[in-house]
Amino acid sequence: MTLSTSWVDGAAGSLFDLDNLPYGVFSTRDDGARRVGVRIGDHVLDLATVAEVGDPASALAAVWRTPSLNAFMAMGPEQWTVARDWITEVLRDELHAERTSPHLHRLDAVELHLPIEIGDYVDFYASLQHASNVGRMFRPDQEPLLPNWKHLPVGYHGRSGTVVPSGTDIVRPCGQRKAPTEDSPTFGPSRRLDIEAELGFVVGVGSTLGQRVGTDAFADHTFGVVGLNDWSARDIQAWEYVPLGPFLGKSFATSISHWVTPLAALDAAWTDLPGQDPEPLDYLRVERRSGLDIEVEVLLNDIVVSRPPYSSMYWSPAQMLAHTTANGASVRTGDLWGSGTISGGEPEQRGSFLELSWGGAEPFTVFGVERSFLEDGDTVTLRYTAPGTSGGRIALGEVTGRVLPAT
Amino acid sequence: MTLSTSWVDGAAGSLFDLDNLPYGVFSTRDDGARRVGVRIGDHVLDLATVAEVGDPASALAAVWRTPSLNAFMAMGPEQWTVARDWITEVLRDELHAERTSPHLHRLDAVELHLPIEIGDYVDFYASLQHASNVGRMFRPDQEPLLPNWKHLPVGYHGRSGTVVPSGTDIVRPCGQRKAPTEDSPTFGPSRRLDIEAELGFVVGVGSTLGQRVGTDAFADHTFGVVGLNDWSARDIQAWEYVPLGPFLGKSFATSISHWVTPLAALDAAWTDLPGQDPEPLDYLRVERRSGLDIEVEVLLNDIVVSRPPYSSMYWSPAQMLAHTTANGASVRTGDLWGSGTISGGEPEQRGSFLELSWGGAEPFTVFGVERSFLEDGDTVTLRYTAPGTSGGRIALGEVTGRVLPAT
Repeated sequence: MTLSTSWVDGAAGSLFDLDNLPYGVFSTRDDGARRVGVRIGDHVLDLATVAEVGDPASALAAVWRTPSLNAFMAMGPEQWTVARDWITEVLRDELHAERTSPHLHRLDAVELHLPIEIGDYVDFYASLQHASNVGRMFRPDQEPLLPNWKHLPVGYHGRSGTVVPSGTDIVRPCGQRKAPTEDSPTFGPSRRLDIEAELGFVVGVGSTLGQRVGTDAFADHTFGVVGLNDWSARDIQAWEYVPLGPFLGKSFATSISHWVTPLAALDAAWTDLPGQDPEPLDYLRVERRSGLDIEVEVLLNDIVVSRPPYSSMYWSPAQMLAHTTANGASVRTGDLWGSGTISGGEPEQRGSFLELSWGGAEPFTVFGVERSFLEDGDTVTLRYTAPGTSGGRIALGEVTGRVLPAT
Repeated sequence: MTLSTSWVDGAAGSLFDLDNLPYGVFSTRDDGARRVGVRIGDHVLDLATVAEVGDPASALAAVWRTPSLNAFMAMGPEQWTVARDWITEVLRDELHAERTSPHLHRLDAVELHLPIEIGDYVDFYASLQHASNVGRMFRPDQEPLLPNWKHLPVGYHGRSGTVVPSGTDIVRPCGQRKAPTEDSPTFGPSRRLDIEAELGFVVGVGSTLGQRVGTDAFADHTFGVVGLNDWSARDIQAWEYVPLGPFLGKSFATSISHWVTPLAALDAAWTDLPGQDPEPLDYLRVERRSGLDIEVEVLLNDIVVSRPPYSSMYWSPAQMLAHTTANGASVRTGDLWGSGTISGGEPEQRGSFLELSWGGAEPFTVFGVERSFLEDGDTVTLRYTAPGTSGGRIALGEVTGRVLPAT
């Protein structure tokens, strides 16, 4: 463990010191070109420009000049390490301060963009508490969990073309909905707009069609993690989803953080899964520490309304990747998968308003005001922290979005 | 109606004369660069090269030099018409034969590739007969159609990263499956590998996030159609699909034709829908002739085993596009949607082996041999024809694939 800190103003002791170093894509007023940067404290470092100072033919500089992380991610784990070691050195040793400082931009002076060009987006359903809560609400007379749930990480494909970066306003979706008490469906703005507080995983290195990615190859393919809010229109979803799953109830927007935290920054966050019973089939077996100790906060209009613990998730990210490719399906650089709503065992750990308000039947109180689903003008922010490799904590990229009225 | 034919050898009177002109992406032994071509008879014309002879700065030549149809499709309907008129003239008037002929390649001398860079892939379930057949098999004691089916075109997102071009071998997928009679799931090669004979639609011009595409704007956004086989592992699908829909049962491969037939070639194929009752909600209303009279043939090892009529489909392509964007979700150039299995009202018009063999319970006979699901070594080919604008018929791109044993 190296207790090293950066010479950059304000970085030392912050949640974005040298043990974090998430990547993103930014542009400046002077230079509108989108390019890759790394976050240090409240600054972003223009990576390509700095790399070219040292080596005009730098292969890393070439990929950092592009408008997404994809080309860098496709280089693979060895180059990810080379890059991280080099960035750490540049930002740690004051010898580099003079020539590097001109390429540091204050966060409030840059525009941040979607960091990755997304291939396929898959969303899972990996929280036992979330799946149980939903089961209890929707099928009160039956076992809360469906028969397949403990045998495989249930997942489905979402819409990659509507994954938007944090800060994008969310227009309340319209759609068909029919309450059980109504004779026929009507079309109009969703009345049960919700969030799903999730963690997202980003594929760096693709795989070959027809070949499985084992749970032990997770780190060979996975570049890092993002914050993810899978906005959901529960009324649209409830009417459409049998038998082929959610479609328009989810596809209007999925927000991800501007920052992608590389797996290397999460070395100290690995933890045991809560336990899997029955033992999963061979292709889903994982080593002991395959869960992640990441704490999440859900804020509604700047007030914390829930604290879901990612460590409570039943299925691990390595299991989700292995399952995705178990049939020979390939993954590509830029593929994204979400964990599914993160809900802990306590009421104040639930990761959706559906659960926090028990389907709207038990509104929760925020500063004396009763709330259930999202109202126009609401802002939802998800924040994430994890143990850092230097003994403190690091923050993952936050995800925020404001609800605008339906058009 | 122009009864014009091409000077290209073998084109006149074929299914690929001037009233067809589908686009694809090819390369040659001499020139491995993937580029856009148009099919005429049994030849492909190298479009960029010919366009540059006339105009070295041709904007069309620039987009035809790229390795997918996306840049061309993104230009929009006016340029699609300009291009089609120009190609028609070049291939119709013998004056152009001398300078054009060197850029015609025999189909058996080129390699054909995936024609589009696919954004999101959505698969629908738009055949009343298919949905009813599946309902009767899986829920014999209930109404065959679920309550939402006649109110909206049910659909879900598939995996765009595993869409492969016609001719790609299909490795039998492995996965979890559990028969109702078994206590717990096992992992292994699918025992119920199937096809779905579908028609695919390709988005040329994208839409804006938050704005709906009305049914009347179908032709402003849709570039053309492809043949599509949505390979399906029924046993994997049956165990995984509740409650979030099909995932690994479908994601191992979806085959599409090499050729994209532009909508302009289908002008004479529009026909009335079979009828919709109840009347759909306003955002799904369409004009009278919004169905397509396309005949499909399903061949198992070169023997026709079914003839599904696309004209029998309940939901129209314009309704599927309007539904996809009804919640404000945007579409992008290269988005692909499948119609869902095409099944007509007669047993010999069913577009899946699930239906042809009634879930395996009633094997069908092919030249004296009983068959139900796909066996290793089987080849399935889908062929499509439609009325052409010159009074004859045109062929759409065929889709073929051979089943290889699981690895």
